[in-house]
Amino acid sequence: MEVAQALSSARFVLITSHRSPDGDALGSELALWEMCGLLGRQAVVVNRDPHPASLAFLPNLAKAQVTERVPAELLDQVDLVVFLECPGPERPGFPELLPKPLVNVDHHLDNPLYGTVNFVDPEAPAVGEMLLAVADAAGVALTPTMATCLYTALVTDTGDFRYSNATPRAFAAAQRLVEAGAQPAAIAEALNDHVPARVIRLQALVLGTLELQADGRVAVITCTADMLKTAGAFPEDTEDMINIVRAIDGVKVAVFFKAFAPDTVRVSLRSKGPINVQKLAAAFGGGGHENASGLTFHGDLPQARAAILPGILQLLEKA
Amino acid sequence: MEVAQALSSARFVLITSHRSPDGDALGSELALWEMCGLLGRQAVVVNRDPHPASLAFLPNLAKAQVTERVPAELLDQVDLVVFLECPGPERPGFPELLPKPLVNVDHHLDNPLYGTVNFVDPEAPAVGEMLLAVADAAGVALTPTMATCLYTALVTDTGDFRYSNATPRAFAAAQRLVEAGAQPAAIAEALNDHVPARVIRLQALVLGTLELQADGRVAVITCTADMLKTAGAFPEDTEDMINIVRAIDGVKVAVFFKAFAPDTVRVSLRSKGPINVQKLAAAFGGGGHENASGLTFHGDLPQARAAILPGILQLLEKA
Repeated sequence: MEVAQALSSARFVLITSHRSPDGDALGSELALWEMCGLLGRQAVVVNRDPHPASLAFLPNLAKAQVTERVPAELLDQVDLVVFLECPGPERPGFPELLPKPLVNVDHHLDNPLYGTVNFVDPEAPAVGEMLLAVADAAGVALTPTMATCLYTALVTDTGDFRYSNATPRAFAAAQRLVEAGAQPAAIAEALNDHVPARVIRLQALVLGTLELQADGRVAVITCTADMLKTAGAFPEDTEDMINIVRAIDGVKVAVFFKAFAPDTVRVSLRSKGPINVQKLAAAFGGGGHENASGLTFHGDLPQARAAILPGILQLLEKA
Repeated sequence: MEVAQALSSARFVLITSHRSPDGDALGSELALWEMCGLLGRQAVVVNRDPHPASLAFLPNLAKAQVTERVPAELLDQVDLVVFLECPGPERPGFPELLPKPLVNVDHHLDNPLYGTVNFVDPEAPAVGEMLLAVADAAGVALTPTMATCLYTALVTDTGDFRYSNATPRAFAAAQRLVEAGAQPAAIAEALNDHVPARVIRLQALVLGTLELQADGRVAVITCTADMLKTAGAFPEDTEDMINIVRAIDGVKVAVFFKAFAPDTVRVSLRSKGPINVQKLAAAFGGGGHENASGLTFHGDLPQARAAILPGILQLLEKA
């Protein structure tokens, strides 16, 4: 395998991933860092952005440096760069690395194979899973710390095996990683124990706005700039809330009005089954998928409600 | 295998499980029902209690009868009874079945082997996983509907593979079941789409009471009878809420005061790491484990707070 060969013949490997690294990015980086060490190669992990608090438990995390630019004296030593889970070469935010020999390991379908060596497998549940093949080809036996990092990559990218990439291959990898020492319960607890208090405060306020319409088939929630202020929260803290009300028994469509700025309302739409909310979003210049879409409405909250909600009732009647 | 032999030589098999059947109970019952059919045996599934709404998607669910007593004319035909996931013979709530030849399939450590045939494996992640061995021994090939039932059993009993029974064996079973046609994403969605609206309304009220104490190391939430009334909710609807605040970043101990009756306050305690909340609960006549315990306080809410909260601060100081 080309990747294993490239690693084995390198002297100094710089490993990176996309900005705002997630579990697959950071878990894969740290496992590969350890693999390089076992292969007798010098290696560093460098990222533009710090890790989320939920990943603070990852073994060897202290080895991952966060920097705006790769220092020139480090760059001079590096003779191989590995980009993990980057669908494009700009993703790590380190243009200074691009002239180097580059290994591109990714599982995005649209990866344009920008590396000197490319290992791109859209069937892979996570890049962490692909590194099992790299370890095997390089003759590296999995350690418990490596298994912990790769299991974290797998479990975060498959949403606790609840996404469509929870394939037989994902479960085969999980089995192998647990056999090698990954502890699913401890990892799950570590991953889930870092919800900021402000998110819970905001959740209380937003869920308090819940309205059910059309005999409980439509759930509507709202977040205002005042609520953000009261909770000390940020717009991105609202991210998962529409899924909480989408899961209500009997609800077919969930609508989330986010009135953060004057005269602009962000509207998120989720549906279950054959109810196409993308069409409604498109009518307002928005986009997305059949069951998950969004739009930006220019007007105030009452105007947004008056414009959007009747369209949802129509969708329900047609379905 | 004795279980497979017993099934293969029976004419009419009655399958049941514990009262208030969960995913492992019902999934295992329905898979075994299908297995019996493929073996050319007549079979029925009989339960005392109805299924939870979250399991309404299970294939062949209409085959599971709910009844207070097994009708005499049915009982007459039955020559083999199978108890699934029952740590004791009283669990199904059908004493009229006990004189029959009885197969006991369970994964509880304390199962006293009350059956004529016993297949008890405390290492099994779910009874649904044990039925894979039964199918193999009986020579039954897995169908997609059987796989869906058994995957549901596995995923519910392992908490989406986040509990300590997410063993290599659990992942091996998951791989096999997905290969046989179980669809993890569709099953996860079906399982999670049935939260009653009243639970969300109550969650908004209870999370709205969040207080952080001791520099954010203690999270306190409260539910009163008035809140239940406002939300149209029941005491059991509060079940998961302490885990939501336990997961807050920096929180070491979570306390939930439930003042549902006059002069009685139920107190739930959760901790992370080496903080023993069981000791505190025991001092008030309660019980539980080191990281999860509870007690009943006789007095009103202010009295309960005054009695319990200083003890928690002391625990933190010692830790």
